[in-house]
Amino acid sequence: MRILGLDPSLSSTGWGVIEVENNRLKYVADGFIKTDPKMALPERLAVIHRTLNEVIETYHPQEAAIEQVFLNDNPTSTIKLGMARGVVILAPALFGIPVCEYEPTKVKKALVGVGRAEKSQVETMVKVLLPGCKPKNNDSSDALAMAITHYNLRQARWLNEKK
Amino acid sequence: MRILGLDPSLSSTGWGVIEVENNRLKYVADGFIKTDPKMALPERLAVIHRTLNEVIETYHPQEAAIEQVFLNDNPTSTIKLGMARGVVILAPALFGIPVCEYEPTKVKKALVGVGRAEKSQVETMVKVLLPGCKPKNNDSSDALAMAITHYNLRQARWLNEKK
Repeated sequence: MRILGLDPSLSSTGWGVIEVENNRLKYVADGFIKTDPKMALPERLAVIHRTLNEVIETYHPQEAAIEQVFLNDNPTSTIKLGMARGVVILAPALFGIPVCEYEPTKVKKALVGVGRAEKSQVETMVKVLLPGCKPKNNDSSDALAMAITHYNLRQARWLNEKK
Repeated sequence: MRILGLDPSLSSTGWGVIEVENNRLKYVADGFIKTDPKMALPERLAVIHRTLNEVIETYHPQEAAIEQVFLNDNPTSTIKLGMARGVVILAPALFGIPVCEYEPTKVKKALVGVGRAEKSQVETMVKVLLPGCKPKNNDSSDALAMAITHYNLRQARWLNEKK
């Protein structure tokens, strides 16, 4: 099974794909979608949409996972994040790929053991859990972390349901 | 020339299309996209995207206009509005249709004469300026108001540039 992890933002959306075979995690690909702040907003959203479509058509994930929400005190930042997030969630949705949402603290807790872990700690765990993987940047590392957490929590849910 | 006005929200996105011939405004169509709050978020965004695609493919607008932003004190509402807004802006952007943004107060001021006009006053002016038009609801009326304002302000810009 292939999982797509997503870390949306208007300026740099991270993505990461992992594969799970017999309960073993394998790194497939990762990247980030930078958009130029000088570009018009509609064009920036279109770049995010088109690039994610290419990622999905290239790697064929069956499930997707995204951060639930990072609420900002600044309403202008929150609306920008919201716009990117809407466009990012839309991409797998249009392919009929289910999208799960996870709180950032839950992802960090599941991966590093503490909800307030640093980005560098998350990256270290991503490298440990996905041997041979060198995340392209912090955003794609967070996206891979999201994909790993989705698999782990998904398994936990499944085991609970079987009890 | 055809103009698409847009009033985005996750629960009910308004849209309206007007045509301008020899400086005369004509009503073409309007509507609203309701999404069920019980549906999963990705599916709600997909419904908005697919319906707007159909609207664009049916009425072939050449330009689009959208409210600049309505900042809410509640971050959860702001992020929801942001997600709907991102998906709504994306639709014309993917067709290569330019999207202009206008502050809500500017739209009301241009249409009714005061920035804090009531929705009913906006609707009355929409009916006056688009003879024969009976907006489907408040959201589609606001979307038509956006389209009308875009044309008026666009003309004003054009006249200023010619001076």
